[in-house]
Amino acid sequence: MELIRAAERQTLTMAELREGARNNQAVTLRGMVHAVRDMGGVTFLTLRTRAGVVQCVWETEEDGITGECALEVSGILRLEGRAPGGFELAVDRAAVLSRPAAPLPVPLSKGRRHLNLDTELGLRPVVLRAPEEQAVFRLQAGIARAFREYLQDRGFTEIHTPKIVHAGAEGGSNIFRLDYFGRKAFLAQSPQFYKQTMVGAFERVFEVAPVFRAEKHATPRHLNEYTSMDFEMGFIDSFYDVMEMEAGFLRAMTELLGGEYAGELELLGAELPPVEEIPAVRFDEAKRLAAEKYGYRIRDPYDLEPEEEQAIGRYAKEEWGADFVFVTHYPSKKRPFYAMDDPADPRYTLSFDLLFRGMEVTTGGQRVHDYAAQVEKMEKRGMHPEEFTHYLMIFKHGMPPHGGLGIGLERLTMKLCGLDNVRRACLFPRDLTRLEP
Amino acid sequence: MELIRAAERQTLTMAELREGARNNQAVTLRGMVHAVRDMGGVTFLTLRTRAGVVQCVWETEEDGITGECALEVSGILRLEGRAPGGFELAVDRAAVLSRPAAPLPVPLSKGRRHLNLDTELGLRPVVLRAPEEQAVFRLQAGIARAFREYLQDRGFTEIHTPKIVHAGAEGGSNIFRLDYFGRKAFLAQSPQFYKQTMVGAFERVFEVAPVFRAEKHATPRHLNEYTSMDFEMGFIDSFYDVMEMEAGFLRAMTELLGGEYAGELELLGAELPPVEEIPAVRFDEAKRLAAEKYGYRIRDPYDLEPEEEQAIGRYAKEEWGADFVFVTHYPSKKRPFYAMDDPADPRYTLSFDLLFRGMEVTTGGQRVHDYAAQVEKMEKRGMHPEEFTHYLMIFKHGMPPHGGLGIGLERLTMKLCGLDNVRRACLFPRDLTRLEP
Repeated sequence: MELIRAAERQTLTMAELREGARNNQAVTLRGMVHAVRDMGGVTFLTLRTRAGVVQCVWETEEDGITGECALEVSGILRLEGRAPGGFELAVDRAAVLSRPAAPLPVPLSKGRRHLNLDTELGLRPVVLRAPEEQAVFRLQAGIARAFREYLQDRGFTEIHTPKIVHAGAEGGSNIFRLDYFGRKAFLAQSPQFYKQTMVGAFERVFEVAPVFRAEKHATPRHLNEYTSMDFEMGFIDSFYDVMEMEAGFLRAMTELLGGEYAGELELLGAELPPVEEIPAVRFDEAKRLAAEKYGYRIRDPYDLEPEEEQAIGRYAKEEWGADFVFVTHYPSKKRPFYAMDDPADPRYTLSFDLLFRGMEVTTGGQRVHDYAAQVEKMEKRGMHPEEFTHYLMIFKHGMPPHGGLGIGLERLTMKLCGLDNVRRACLFPRDLTRLEP
Repeated sequence: MELIRAAERQTLTMAELREGARNNQAVTLRGMVHAVRDMGGVTFLTLRTRAGVVQCVWETEEDGITGECALEVSGILRLEGRAPGGFELAVDRAAVLSRPAAPLPVPLSKGRRHLNLDTELGLRPVVLRAPEEQAVFRLQAGIARAFREYLQDRGFTEIHTPKIVHAGAEGGSNIFRLDYFGRKAFLAQSPQFYKQTMVGAFERVFEVAPVFRAEKHATPRHLNEYTSMDFEMGFIDSFYDVMEMEAGFLRAMTELLGGEYAGELELLGAELPPVEEIPAVRFDEAKRLAAEKYGYRIRDPYDLEPEEEQAIGRYAKEEWGADFVFVTHYPSKKRPFYAMDDPADPRYTLSFDLLFRGMEVTTGGQRVHDYAAQVEKMEKRGMHPEEFTHYLMIFKHGMPPHGGLGIGLERLTMKLCGLDNVRRACLFPRDLTRLEP
């Protein structure tokens, strides 16, 4: 029998190294060889460590070291203005921990890659090693982290709800079917029923988890599996409470990213959006404003097409200097049965979308909470309330007024990083034709 | 156009209220009516707020207020030793925000519920409102939070990997099948391939996400969908680095739960396990020790049955005072093809399970990282390397020595809370017969 204790190795961040925390001291670094250059007897090597890329230099030729070797190097760290991170390692000793069996099929440097998206996605397992690709997904991790931390601080409890379900929350045909021990089951399109259920217990809940949509869209903005950041909150006065909570999260997000993730933003040339005040405009008003300004005819008064979202986004930027814009009061016929209708005009709902640089990244709103009202709305839509016994149970036995939203993590990442396709903001995207890697 | 700003409402925690932060001041609380008692003209009411249960008292009869009404109450807060949280609200004004259509089908007080598990799970949407049930899942949220925060602080990056996959990582028949736009697909049994892939990019990664196992076990320890807390780390010296990282997480977890979640632990009578030092014992040695001490015969030298896990857990408690015990060096034939064999004796692997109070809650170990070695091991097992092109790509083009683990969140919660069935540690469990709620 042995005893295992927590390891407390000292690891410095790039920022600490850059600030000279170990200047002129002996250190050992481990990482993957990014590039090697022999400059006439002097070897320059860039090492990808988990904290960032570090330049290593030594005075001998190192024949055996190639790209994608796993390396341990020891030497003296010194501040050096010409090195990528502002410092370099003067190597005394290098040990190869593992070697590749073959060189990379493509260069990792973005400027030299020149692949079409399809080829690039097929090579994702190694292309993701490129610093620019890493930066996208580090920022994505930062977004999810900001979401959780902001909500935790405001009394939200994290939940984990089932993804194999007996009925879809969003209805329609966009749902994956599954054989569940001989019974028909589905993959959850959203955690909607479950997060509302948990409002009855915890009042405020959130979940960051995959959702599945069997949509047959092959567009730059659709994924068939994506990560949804959901929250739901009880005791709201109106759906404005939900929008204010999202505005607060977005502010916390930009603060976190602008601080700890400044290097990633810089590498991608990504600009943080203004978030102190986010304009909100009614659905019909938004359509009218954009159509008038850009001189096009509104085709469908009940729906917002991608091109129209772009026009509204452009309008918000040009007129109000806003990257984000809330579009409120969507038509009832385009919203699910659990959306609360506006008592002032039941053709519209107390709901909203959030557009970010012209693309929908959030859908939210106030929900029906009264049992009789919910049953009536379902029946009016030709639904069968008896198929939703467990969901209706929460209203039957009392629910507070509540609302919430779902944010598409990949779309938020895509627009933040200025990417042209949502697949670039998903590690291993699933679409109509792509099931691997 | 309106402008939406972050809402910054002041919300106090129960701890702050208990410490008298608002003593003798006017406050407004919102919550669900847990219980009402009329004591001859004086109404006592307990309100479930998101911070906890608060006693409210007023001097009039309140006919209209029943259990599970959503209520807003205003009054003077005062410290009161006899009240549940140490304070109560002397109500001036109460407003009902919503009413149930029917009373609860069961009492929420645990002592009076007396339901069998099956009935209770069917009523989960409302039973979860009970404070003891809430406590289980608040602790669960705390566990996942500790996992993420501990790893974030040590340079791990969060990842989101696909749950719809073209091949299972764990092999075998325990995999759900799916129709994916006319192609055969599966639900991920683990994020194994993807988290290893991301070690090549980020070096250290973690994911907290659902996994799916089509196991036909109807036991108190199996779920067909559960939440797996996974991490994977590069540049390890041995699989001891992985165990030390887990030991560190467990220490951070007990510190967080013992602090911020002390109320939940107390409500459940749950005891935190000792985690400063965790014994580790070899698989064959663990089997021998337990069999000798408890006088039974080892039936299968290559496997560990649930009863044997219990015996080893009992041994660890009695002999070493340990609630956790690492069992190391599992036989190769019982480990997947990506496990690294022990060079000193290839019949065993450089891997481990962690048992918690006699039940496996973690499987982990060092992985093969050399391309030729991985291909050879797959071929020896009769697998077809050409079916794993994207996975093998990472080894072909260089991977550092690495290892990792997966922790079952529900099992860890179950054993921590002293529950008798893993279903009680899952909000909406999926098993052989249960697909709803």
